[in-house]
Amino acid sequence: MSVAVPIQRAQIIGTGLIGGSIGLGLRQRGWRVTGTDALPARAARALELGVVDEVGIDPDAQITFVATPASHVVAEARLALRRGGVVTDVAGVKAAITSELDHPRFVAGHPMAGSEQEGVEGADGELFDGATWVLTPGEHTDAEAYALVQAVIGLLGANVIAVAPSRHDALVALVSHVPHLTAATLMNLAADAALEDTTLLRLAAGGFRDMTRIAAGHPGIWPDVCVDNRAAILSVLDALTGALTEIRRVVADGDRPGLISWLERAREERINLPVGAPPPGETAELRIPVPDRPGAIAEVTTTLAELGVNIFDIEIAHSAEGGRGVMVLAVDLPSAELARKALADLGHRVSVRRIGE
Amino acid sequence: MSVAVPIQRAQIIGTGLIGGSIGLGLRQRGWRVTGTDALPARAARALELGVVDEVGIDPDAQITFVATPASHVVAEARLALRRGGVVTDVAGVKAAITSELDHPRFVAGHPMAGSEQEGVEGADGELFDGATWVLTPGEHTDAEAYALVQAVIGLLGANVIAVAPSRHDALVALVSHVPHLTAATLMNLAADAALEDTTLLRLAAGGFRDMTRIAAGHPGIWPDVCVDNRAAILSVLDALTGALTEIRRVVADGDRPGLISWLERAREERINLPVGAPPPGETAELRIPVPDRPGAIAEVTTTLAELGVNIFDIEIAHSAEGGRGVMVLAVDLPSAELARKALADLGHRVSVRRIGE
Repeated sequence: MSVAVPIQRAQIIGTGLIGGSIGLGLRQRGWRVTGTDALPARAARALELGVVDEVGIDPDAQITFVATPASHVVAEARLALRRGGVVTDVAGVKAAITSELDHPRFVAGHPMAGSEQEGVEGADGELFDGATWVLTPGEHTDAEAYALVQAVIGLLGANVIAVAPSRHDALVALVSHVPHLTAATLMNLAADAALEDTTLLRLAAGGFRDMTRIAAGHPGIWPDVCVDNRAAILSVLDALTGALTEIRRVVADGDRPGLISWLERAREERINLPVGAPPPGETAELRIPVPDRPGAIAEVTTTLAELGVNIFDIEIAHSAEGGRGVMVLAVDLPSAELARKALADLGHRVSVRRIGE
Repeated sequence: MSVAVPIQRAQIIGTGLIGGSIGLGLRQRGWRVTGTDALPARAARALELGVVDEVGIDPDAQITFVATPASHVVAEARLALRRGGVVTDVAGVKAAITSELDHPRFVAGHPMAGSEQEGVEGADGELFDGATWVLTPGEHTDAEAYALVQAVIGLLGANVIAVAPSRHDALVALVSHVPHLTAATLMNLAADAALEDTTLLRLAAGGFRDMTRIAAGHPGIWPDVCVDNRAAILSVLDALTGALTEIRRVVADGDRPGLISWLERAREERINLPVGAPPPGETAELRIPVPDRPGAIAEVTTTLAELGVNIFDIEIAHSAEGGRGVMVLAVDLPSAELARKALADLGHRVSVRRIGE
């Protein structure tokens, strides 16, 4: 997306992974970026890495990104608003911040992007390319300020959507916060059992690995998230325990039709869950049983690379009970048939399905 | 593993995916395999596909695999025991079957392998290679019968472990059955919310996809599993809702130290969760940030293929909030350093970690 933006100066407050990636991305697009950090050594490192042009405060910055830990956002955004220009933040919970900072030039935001890398060392100017970036404007946010923030984020390649702040918080509680807590809960339950019986973990196959994968992440932001989004998280936890209690009843009663229709619904919904990067409806999923030999995965991925097909996502789907699995590749829809044919010519059994319709 | 097995005739009852894969695997190793199925067309198709040598009953078979749906196992195993030889089954729940069939020549079993392919069309003689295959002998099972079943399963490449039947059922409830129900529950909760707000699914990034992936499977065996393993599943569901209630308290109280230590423990345990295929301690994990361009994944996998490194598992790990992610490859430990060096020479930032110690 190419947007004519008449401004060229940005201020970053907090040059960690997200702030650093914003700085790097804007510099790569010709902007002048100034940054500070509560840790002077981190700001100096950001300068060394080319994430900012200069350490300090740019009084002429037209946009300030407050990319500090959530607990510092309100204070830092207030200082930035006093200096001028539009101000946005990147905290993962939005209702409290948006209501505390209901100012015409403040536009709260939440980029749905991250990395396993930590800190400014992981800064990546393309981190937001194709990511969803939520903006949660307040009642008094200027349309002009909103448009400016949206345009700058668009430059970074993100897809911007506007959501009411409380709605944002309820949604991320459901698709991010409570799933994270649930993954950790399942992992700890299994760990308790494994203390008594080390066989357990040998039986933990593909499905269990998938369900607990995010529990391997750093606790990092979670204590803040759980405080800032307490109400929404408690409400989703209640809904989850309520739903599990209902499933307990279905299992206790041996209610086969109830169980089947409930599993069928989940299956339908999961199959149609859109993949992250490209817009829904433009992606296809290729499923290819994987032979267990060196080079099998390379053969498939190389074939697609030679055709210029970009693989958005790749996973080995195991059945709940393990097994070697099926390679699932997300590719853009126009390339899917091309890819299928080339792989079929090599003897692979490939099925193709359009996603997210 | 090479085992001298003095017998060469096997009987398969139920030529679906699992029965068919056993038949094919044994035929590929020189055995004579006879098979039947409740659906004559399926048995005929098994013959066509070379899964069995003959359709029917072999009165001289030294081993019978009962690979029917769980509800038919006891009746079919009784018939097979009357004919002679040792008899084993492949049902996913073991306590009831083992106690109903406590016969010297019956050895209950559960291969922890599956496939997304369905039915005999998906039969694969290598399906069990490297898989865990649990045997749950009863009180009266002969040592000789056990040794025979173990040897034949060993021929198929599986790693055999013996577990008490009730313990098996408790373990699979924890690492397979309840996680499956939980994945479906999370997916259906999100689907309910998405009815009111279609934004929701655009916010459902990597972590949510991982946690709900197994919900995309066929309901297939689950109603039987939930009936046969009811007690263990109810008990794990109770433990899960209990643990979630405790986490609710931690969140409600804003108990940061409690939350952090609990998340840290889950993180440690998940990082050390062994991967499926090779024995723990012999596997390493390579983590490589993935550039978003055609050919990036191919470059990595091809490099390893050229070195003869077998990739046991591959996934793109996203942070809980999305982003492009990091490719995680499981390879055998002796190859890990070789692989790291070759990838580093190509400019990739690779970290290596030994798994499952």
